[in-house]
Amino acid sequence: MKLKVYADRMSQPSRAVLIFCKVNGIEFDEIKTEISKKQQKSPEYKEINPMGNVPAIVDGKFKLFESHAILVYLACAFPGVADHWYPADLFKRAKIDSVLHWHHTTLRRGAAPLVLNSRLAPVFGLPLNLQAAAEAEKVLTRSLAMIESIWLEGKGRFLLGSFKPSIADLSLVCEIMQLELLDERDRDRILGPHKKVLQWVEDTKKATRPHFDEIHELLFKLKAKLAEMWADGAKSETVTGGKREMLSKM
Amino acid sequence: MKLKVYADRMSQPSRAVLIFCKVNGIEFDEIKTEISKKQQKSPEYKEINPMGNVPAIVDGKFKLFESHAILVYLACAFPGVADHWYPADLFKRAKIDSVLHWHHTTLRRGAAPLVLNSRLAPVFGLPLNLQAAAEAEKVLTRSLAMIESIWLEGKGRFLLGSFKPSIADLSLVCEIMQLELLDERDRDRILGPHKKVLQWVEDTKKATRPHFDEIHELLFKLKAKLAEMWADGAKSETVTGGKREMLSKM
Repeated sequence: MKLKVYADRMSQPSRAVLIFCKVNGIEFDEIKTEISKKQQKSPEYKEINPMGNVPAIVDGKFKLFESHAILVYLACAFPGVADHWYPADLFKRAKIDSVLHWHHTTLRRGAAPLVLNSRLAPVFGLPLNLQAAAEAEKVLTRSLAMIESIWLEGKGRFLLGSFKPSIADLSLVCEIMQLELLDERDRDRILGPHKKVLQWVEDTKKATRPHFDEIHELLFKLKAKLAEMWADGAKSETVTGGKREMLSKM
Repeated sequence: MKLKVYADRMSQPSRAVLIFCKVNGIEFDEIKTEISKKQQKSPEYKEINPMGNVPAIVDGKFKLFESHAILVYLACAFPGVADHWYPADLFKRAKIDSVLHWHHTTLRRGAAPLVLNSRLAPVFGLPLNLQAAAEAEKVLTRSLAMIESIWLEGKGRFLLGSFKPSIADLSLVCEIMQLELLDERDRDRILGPHKKVLQWVEDTKKATRPHFDEIHELLFKLKAKLAEMWADGAKSETVTGGKREMLSKM
């Protein structure tokens, strides 16, 4: 039975899992689970993932959620996956685990609420929260500085000084890609000073093409729609039902 | 060369690593790294862990931080560790990874800021923040309900229906132990409705005695001191230098 991946391409951890499968030639069925339609909260989906979020996988009888756990599992369970994604070497593996656990309380805690509170909230019928956005930006900026000075130290172009990407590169870069949804000037202001981060994002894209671009197409469509919406003067903190449906029509 | 564990017994992830080593007979030197003295921010310590937090380990030439990555590494690197802590079975391991990654954005994001903002802040010379505490309590309560209805489902007494504890039990229970620092009534109000959680905490303590109690002694000393401090009417949002030194004198 083919692997099932329950995902929404708007969600950065969903994209990481989808790209990983495609790059590694893992055959799978993508089951679209749209957050804008609250499909991840449906009783049917909660049979797959009781936490009610995406992504999740079903591999035969085995169900799993939490994207980092999924990436580790896929790298170990599918023999065709190249070693560099999650090396068998205990020390290299431990360092990748360290990055993956670090991600939750730093980069993710900065990027996700910044995008939501400064830009995306009206799409979900929520008010903007500029104070929360400002606090998230501080966390994000500190996290980017840490990536640059700590995780990207070393000879290679990828995290932990590696010459080839790991699941940590994929997960963190997909998180950073979410910043495409910000106003261009804000994105440039935040990411611009981090030249090594920008280069690493490009290197990770290059190493996972054409799948990286294909899986991110929907994000860029939303980016264009958001730019339109904001140009239309939708900066008020209310939103019409029409805007909430924007996502589901893409 | 003996394993070095850099830890502060006030920190819940530090305690999880220390208990794990003791329960599994891993020989190690505990290097006290006191948060109240900002020792985790010293240039010497940042050579060990550039992120400036505890715990961290040095095993020969190998340095590692992030407690979950450390627990996984120790379980794999030390042959004397019983399989149930982090089973070799790919499926069981993936489920434990899922719990460990889930922990960061749920239980930890609830418990840690609740304790800090409602009770511990004055000890570090910070103001209380009751709004942040109330928000953290909501996250904590949701997380406890998820532990009860999802992770503690199944036949066994431990997470994922297991009959013996894993590193996930140890990590999550050490997090919940931090709630000992709350006012007794608040702690009972929050934990009281979660009978399965309370039983599981007891079972995990029992399975890791006497080390669990020994490593938590300092936490109970702080609990007593905090109760005294609050009884003295230290509910104002300022604090004297003397209180900040309370921790370092214990």
